[in-house]
Amino acid sequence: MKTNPGRFFEDFRLGETIRHATPRTVTTGDVALYTGLYGPRFAVQSSDAFARAIGYPQSPLDDMLVFHVVFGKTVPDISLNALANLGYAEGGFRRPVYPGETLSTVSEVIGLKESSNRQTGVVYVRSTGADERGETVLSYCRWVLVRKRDPEAAIAQEHVPTLAKAVDPKDLANALPPLQAGAYDTALSGSPHRFGDYAAGERIDHVDGMTVEEAEHQIATRLFQNTAKVHFDGLAAKDTRFGKRLIYGGHVISLARALSYNGLANAFALAGINAGRHVGPLFAGDTVYAWSEVLETADVGRPDVGLLRLRTVATKNQPCTDFPDKHNDGYDPAVILDLDYWAFVPK
Amino acid sequence: MKTNPGRFFEDFRLGETIRHATPRTVTTGDVALYTGLYGPRFAVQSSDAFARAIGYPQSPLDDMLVFHVVFGKTVPDISLNALANLGYAEGGFRRPVYPGETLSTVSEVIGLKESSNRQTGVVYVRSTGADERGETVLSYCRWVLVRKRDPEAAIAQEHVPTLAKAVDPKDLANALPPLQAGAYDTALSGSPHRFGDYAAGERIDHVDGMTVEEAEHQIATRLFQNTAKVHFDGLAAKDTRFGKRLIYGGHVISLARALSYNGLANAFALAGINAGRHVGPLFAGDTVYAWSEVLETADVGRPDVGLLRLRTVATKNQPCTDFPDKHNDGYDPAVILDLDYWAFVPK
Amino acid sequence: MKTNPGRFFEDFRLGETIRHATPRTVTTGDVALYTGLYGPRFAVQSSDAFARAIGYPQSPLDDMLVFHVVFGKTVPDISLNALANLGYAEGGFRRPVYPGETLSTVSEVIGLKESSNRQTGVVYVRSTGADERGETVLSYCRWVLVRKRDPEAAIAQEHVPTLAKAVDPKDLANALPPLQAGAYDTALSGSPHRFGDYAAGERIDHVDGMTVEEAEHQIATRLFQNTAKVHFDGLAAKDTRFGKRLIYGGHVISLARALSYNGLANAFALAGINAGRHVGPLFAGDTVYAWSEVLETADVGRPDVGLLRLRTVATKNQPCTDFPDKHNDGYDPAVILDLDYWAFVPK
Repeated sequence: MKTNPGRFFEDFRLGETIRHATPRTVTTGDVALYTGLYGPRFAVQSSDAFARAIGYPQSPLDDMLVFHVVFGKTVPDISLNALANLGYAEGGFRRPVYPGETLSTVSEVIGLKESSNRQTGVVYVRSTGADERGETVLSYCRWVLVRKRDPEAAIAQEHVPTLAKAVDPKDLANALPPLQAGAYDTALSGSPHRFGDYAAGERIDHVDGMTVEEAEHQIATRLFQNTAKVHFDGLAAKDTRFGKRLIYGGHVISLARALSYNGLANAFALAGINAGRHVGPLFAGDTVYAWSEVLETADVGRPDVGLLRLRTVATKNQPCTDFPDKHNDGYDPAVILDLDYWAFVPK
Repeated sequence: MKTNPGRFFEDFRLGETIRHATPRTVTTGDVALYTGLYGPRFAVQSSDAFARAIGYPQSPLDDMLVFHVVFGKTVPDISLNALANLGYAEGGFRRPVYPGETLSTVSEVIGLKESSNRQTGVVYVRSTGADERGETVLSYCRWVLVRKRDPEAAIAQEHVPTLAKAVDPKDLANALPPLQAGAYDTALSGSPHRFGDYAAGERIDHVDGMTVEEAEHQIATRLFQNTAKVHFDGLAAKDTRFGKRLIYGGHVISLARALSYNGLANAFALAGINAGRHVGPLFAGDTVYAWSEVLETADVGRPDVGLLRLRTVATKNQPCTDFPDKHNDGYDPAVILDLDYWAFVPK
Repeated sequence: MKTNPGRFFEDFRLGETIRHATPRTVTTGDVALYTGLYGPRFAVQSSDAFARAIGYPQSPLDDMLVFHVVFGKTVPDISLNALANLGYAEGGFRRPVYPGETLSTVSEVIGLKESSNRQTGVVYVRSTGADERGETVLSYCRWVLVRKRDPEAAIAQEHVPTLAKAVDPKDLANALPPLQAGAYDTALSGSPHRFGDYAAGERIDHVDGMTVEEAEHQIATRLFQNTAKVHFDGLAAKDTRFGKRLIYGGHVISLARALSYNGLANAFALAGINAGRHVGPLFAGDTVYAWSEVLETADVGRPDVGLLRLRTVATKNQPCTDFPDKHNDGYDPAVILDLDYWAFVPK
């Protein structure tokens, strides 16, 4: 059999390392398409001149573009037979990535836990994206619910890893080169608010909404070489519980991140991903909104930038004026994403 | 409040200068996407080899791509609360723009006129797009109808600027480097017709039609970092007078310009915008057609190129065989764009 | 008349050469958009690092992107008034094409055959794509059914060319530079199967399906500067026998090729096109699947790569588990493409 049927739960071994296909050189072409698909306006990623003025050699790629490219490679090996993408933790962007670099991904199986009904199991992986010299640019943990091929199959070794509730901001402090915050022009960046202007507990409604089309999420997901068939095969989707194509969860993250510019224009680089959950599905025709909360501020001893711990919540078909959120008995039904992350902001 | 609510009419001051976010480095990625979205076939912009043969260092960007990038930056500051984009005048492309250059935009408020009902007012701006050294690449005037936050608010100073009916072609003559018209290969450019073959009064039906999809105009408008919510938020659009997303007027201009290749293949570079009016709205599913009229020909003393003053009219859902036009009592209902501009043609 | 009405059958002359507009510089922007539109994952085209490791100077363009760009230029001169694209033969990719190169196309009329009803005729052309130095990168024969303007018009000279049933693989052997098959990393390429693992008669169901949207095929077809109005004008399409826009046949080829990665991941470069037929039309909303058969294997004396002769069949709205095929009385109604080609595979 020369086609890839994907791994089932019993095919994973605790501790094994999986080198994923296909390495990918990222280019200014990807940047343009990413801009067209999501509409980010962060100045550092948009303007080589702005980036150089504060100390970058040129504009780095949007961090979420890097994430999606690294993530996409894991799909054929990890989640082709997944029923659900359950969560993210311990994500860290190690350095900026520039056009012309080649990314590849390796995953280590760090946890396996069979479900009580023996039909499925949860696979925990730590995926690491590296450049062509093998230097890490991003790593993160993810766990997914994967089907078993044979419910009777025995699982050699189970283990549920202990994952940090949040990444220690001190471990993220060196992810950016030394920058000149004084040269960071807030008229050009689109907001006067610097690190000191944000405080824990502050909530921001990002106001704008984006309606998503089938062509958009398909183009995006193919750009990331993510092959999960639920995103592309409309005929097969008719027989699923949704009856239609499901949009890649990362598409929602990128939309929410782009929308968050309106209120967080200077949170210009992602540093870490503490936790993430795709609370509900998104479909073509739905409109995405977002709001954020500042969970924490961290001064990590850099003279140029500080870190904000942000929680960005995305909704579908409901503006975020009232900050739809988690309640005692679950989430507001409009919520589709709950993402907890660290971002750099100039001082 | 950290989000941008946009300016209302009473927030503008006559003579003030607004530096817009976000600077943008334009790349061959943008060129590819622009080609995919509109289908331009002008040889100078399509082929580095063709461009070099006649004296350019490489292919310049399509002038309308430059226009949209420069324009997009003005939206968050000028027209977020606009009810209508009323017109353009005194537009001039100062020089070709190449991949790798960074564009930013500054606008000067050159006119303010409150409406008689005091609910709205017209804001006139001169917007200037510049490269990273601050050198102008494009400037144009635009006026928009903007809501007042408070109808009672007093307006400090009003003024209606006098704008030229048309740009003097002599002022545009130096917008291109010296070119070798003899090396301009009309087999490769797709038409044998040079400057001398066009005469005032000539009308050209561009024949072809393009049906527009939601994904296309959204990708385009995001590419230009234009944030006007009417183009993206399908849920909010349900409560507007149209009941659906409205397509960015610039999308129509670029479609019409690309369609105009069939008949104007050698009108390879835009020089000036004399006047422009978005006569009617365009929606996804509509099909755009266009025709042009040669209003004037201008020999500006260059041995290589002359200027054609063109008027391109775009329609929706009606081919232009009969040249749908302005009548005594207004426009043919199919007309959506009436654009008056200067373009360079090789001698 | 300054617009191009396209040639009718009686406008072609046997033996004439037509230089097509518009030359086109291909870039990493085109590569990104091609990736977003089709989702190819072949490592050589995706990763500069992978390509360099085996001996390329950098990643070459996907061969089908080169094909579409070369093909697109022929449409305004050859097939604007075509009723059907009947077939391909004698296609050969002469060398890899890299970002930054400029492609242009010339066609020679090698055959003309009027239909018995005198309403139409078949035009045979050999189209040759060349770089800016005039060196051939691709050539192929195509024949199309073209309308006559005037059924009474006499045809000066008719001739039906004899075209090879298949390209001799020895003639394709030098299309790739010398490569180091030992450095070809099959973990990164996504499949362990090399030349010796494939045998004539083997059939592979490529499993995955892609639903196609109007925006996708329109963006693709414009990217290739293919101007056939049936793909773009939804209003005019209402009066055709299909009642809707018809998708460019090349879009199906690129989808099938990208889907074929799942099973043919190491068939990394196209060498020749033996035959091709668009068996049925594709429309937006349809889902494309594909399967392939190994027709022949050819060792052409290179130590690094061998050639597989493949036949890839694409279907719409029917998975290929049962290999829908040609029967005595025609094709399974689900089949839309039958393509016979040579591809390089590492030894």
